[in-house]
Amino acid sequence: MPHLVILYTPNLDAETDMTRLCRALADTMLAVRDDAGAQVFPTGGVRVLAYPAAHSAVADGGAAVADGGAAGVAAGGTGEYAFVYLNLRMGRGRSAVVKQRAGDALTATAKAHLAPLFAKLHMGLTLQIDEGAEVFDAKHSSLHPLFNKA
Amino acid sequence: MPHLVILYTPNLDAETDMTRLCRALADTMLAVRDDAGAQVFPTGGVRVLAYPAAHSAVADGGAAVADGGAAGVAAGGTGEYAFVYLNLRMGRGRSAVVKQRAGDALTATAKAHLAPLFAKLHMGLTLQIDEGAEVFDAKHSSLHPLFNKA
Amino acid sequence: MPHLVILYTPNLDAETDMTRLCRALADTMLAVRDDAGAQVFPTGGVRVLAYPAAHSAVADGGAAVADGGAAGVAAGGTGEYAFVYLNLRMGRGRSAVVKQRAGDALTATAKAHLAPLFAKLHMGLTLQIDEGAEVFDAKHSSLHPLFNKA
Repeated sequence: MPHLVILYTPNLDAETDMTRLCRALADTMLAVRDDAGAQVFPTGGVRVLAYPAAHSAVADGGAAVADGGAAGVAAGGTGEYAFVYLNLRMGRGRSAVVKQRAGDALTATAKAHLAPLFAKLHMGLTLQIDEGAEVFDAKHSSLHPLFNKA
Repeated sequence: MPHLVILYTPNLDAETDMTRLCRALADTMLAVRDDAGAQVFPTGGVRVLAYPAAHSAVADGGAAVADGGAAGVAAGGTGEYAFVYLNLRMGRGRSAVVKQRAGDALTATAKAHLAPLFAKLHMGLTLQIDEGAEVFDAKHSSLHPLFNKA
Repeated sequence: MPHLVILYTPNLDAETDMTRLCRALADTMLAVRDDAGAQVFPTGGVRVLAYPAAHSAVADGGAAVADGGAAGVAAGGTGEYAFVYLNLRMGRGRSAVVKQRAGDALTATAKAHLAPLFAKLHMGLTLQIDEGAEVFDAKHSSLHPLFNKA
């Protein structure tokens, strides 16, 4: 961990470079520091995975994917709706300050990347952080050793 | 929130209109009322996102996607297996009555839409509601203002 | 339940048969026994769903999907990064022994299937088990009856 999953309406792929957003969010995670200045998330454990939905419905939108609804058209826009949901799952035991710092930084990165879309579409963004409550955890990695050298 | 994610075996896309199911479920969410008659889920926060798996295995089914197993064939059917999992994540603090009402309504909508498939395939449907236990939450939206006008 | 979801970087699809991994993991779930020798997970409730990300970023990797980073190249490998995340959600109330047994068995199956890739790529694997904390649960199935005959 940390593990960031992005679920979004598929119309965004035509509007922005989601791979670049993934990289920007991973960089943001790598830059988070605790109060002692130490990197919070180990490099080899950082991953961001983004998934456009195959089918979706948002607010009062029409049946077709990415179709907008009456309220959007009445507002004088394209009527197109979009949604991005970002969920970061991290290990238990980090301080409240670190959680807030990570959340604020990721939100800022996502909002900056998506700013042109907020101006163009009727779009919602939600970012949530969960602390994993797993009852079993196993890891195996040939990534961590790349970053844990003496 | 609320945030409804549907994970399903990819054979369903050839059998039914999953986009229409998304819209029907979103409409169902919009129609849920509390005991005071107020809309429970704000329109601008409602989204349904559906994801067919790229690879899957169900029960004793074969290795190929959507392939059925011995039990299904022995039962005299096509032997084809399918699964639909619906997960609604909602904010904390709603009453037990509202949770039950939302769950019952969404289950009824899903079962009605998928009824012809239950008659044709060996299929499982599970719908669960989680209350988000997030430790950080941020929202940004140009959707909510469409529905929150004075 | 149980419900196993696999989220992974899309470069793995060119390297291994993910459908076969799904089936192997389902078989592993079907083989888990409790201390009394009874099958833990009912056959008709077992499903494995695997999702390659459309976009991703791992560790210090480049912006392109499955692109590796400086550390991987410096290590003399292909520099290609990969990640597999497996999440099993099971019902509440099972014993600690059963959770450990299921987790160990699934991890062993995943590691065995992916062993050639660990030797070739810089890859991380994480497997976690969550106990569902759902506040509403509904099931409807024409699968269970196939396996619950007298």
